[in-house]
Amino acid sequence: MGIVAEDDALMQGDSRLGGSVRPGGRTARTRAAVFDAAIAELGEKGFAGTNLEKIAGRAGVALSTLYRRWGNLTGLLQDLVDELTLDLSPPDTGSLDGDLAALGRLILQLHRHPVHRPWMDAVTAAAVHDPAARAVLSRTIMARIQRAAGVVEAAAARGEIPVDTDAADVIRMLAAPFYYRMYVSGEPLTDDLPERVAGAVAAAVRAGTLRRTTP
Amino acid sequence: MGIVAEDDALMQGDSRLGGSVRPGGRTARTRAAVFDAAIAELGEKGFAGTNLEKIAGRAGVALSTLYRRWGNLTGLLQDLVDELTLDLSPPDTGSLDGDLAALGRLILQLHRHPVHRPWMDAVTAAAVHDPAARAVLSRTIMARIQRAAGVVEAAAARGEIPVDTDAADVIRMLAAPFYYRMYVSGEPLTDDLPERVAGAVAAAVRAGTLRRTTP
Repeated sequence: MGIVAEDDALMQGDSRLGGSVRPGGRTARTRAAVFDAAIAELGEKGFAGTNLEKIAGRAGVALSTLYRRWGNLTGLLQDLVDELTLDLSPPDTGSLDGDLAALGRLILQLHRHPVHRPWMDAVTAAAVHDPAARAVLSRTIMARIQRAAGVVEAAAARGEIPVDTDAADVIRMLAAPFYYRMYVSGEPLTDDLPERVAGAVAAAVRAGTLRRTTP
Repeated sequence: MGIVAEDDALMQGDSRLGGSVRPGGRTARTRAAVFDAAIAELGEKGFAGTNLEKIAGRAGVALSTLYRRWGNLTGLLQDLVDELTLDLSPPDTGSLDGDLAALGRLILQLHRHPVHRPWMDAVTAAAVHDPAARAVLSRTIMARIQRAAGVVEAAAARGEIPVDTDAADVIRMLAAPFYYRMYVSGEPLTDDLPERVAGAVAAAVRAGTLRRTTP
């Protein structure tokens, strides 16, 4: 969560990374083939059952190329998910409620995305016990929290909420109910969830909670 | 989360299920041995690497006894976690803020509990891809949500919050940031988290958000 997409780019439901691969160029084609193979491997075997060798074989690319470019599996997976979300820029609807709801809709879209979802499932399951998967997931989520926090800082700059609101904590409160349903309670993510959660979190912030604590 | 413990019972850090096993009686001893073996197996091998046969062998109990009493691994794990939390009753501090903070402290205790935490980790990791583990986790979490929701209904009955507040959704908003840190962002669960999250959620509810929607 935390990064906003053009609906078109995210929702086109294309297993070839939603058109993010630049057409033409051998490097770009190799990259696309490796990412496709990695996604297929992850989907079939999960994080623990996949390695660079299997991905290279499936992609028809030399293993040495993968080692040179990514170093290891976690490097490749990090690059894959960065590419998926790199072009996404934060919302700017003019209100905290609107921006938080837009971020919530993005989480919903990532949850339904044909590439992001299997990536997220595999890395989340593995992260419980595997430090390398944990590092990939934490790094990705922390970067998204920091990026999305801009909408809270903008609301503070507009005078909408207290200036010492803890922007990162607001984003965590917003994102958490989505992931709680996905991975803990196992309940469906309904279409009304972004507005509902955004409304609750914005009300909490306007009431003066979630301030920065002095370290 | 969602069920409140006597600190003593939860915090005694005893791998034999915190003293919940009734002393004396062959049945009780068998049960304790099987639960201890199940926890050790789960901790070492995870959900996918464990089965009733291995647990029976480790416990020194006939496999037929395990089949007769629990049917399968998920039945045994469900019984195990129910026993861990069965004696816990909801908080009653007299205010929604206080009750939600008490529930938050319970989640923190379960997170640090020597038996509950490995159980939760194993089942959460497995639930991403395994429908049987998903069923155990969902059933457990939904039962806790329903039970904890009583503190929200009590606050509504006291006139503290709107009568049509969605009690289950309030509990989800409270619990989610804990599990988000555990399994998604990988950030530590700090001691100030229960008060902080409870304060935010209670403020959101007092502001009139998280109402029941007409079906």
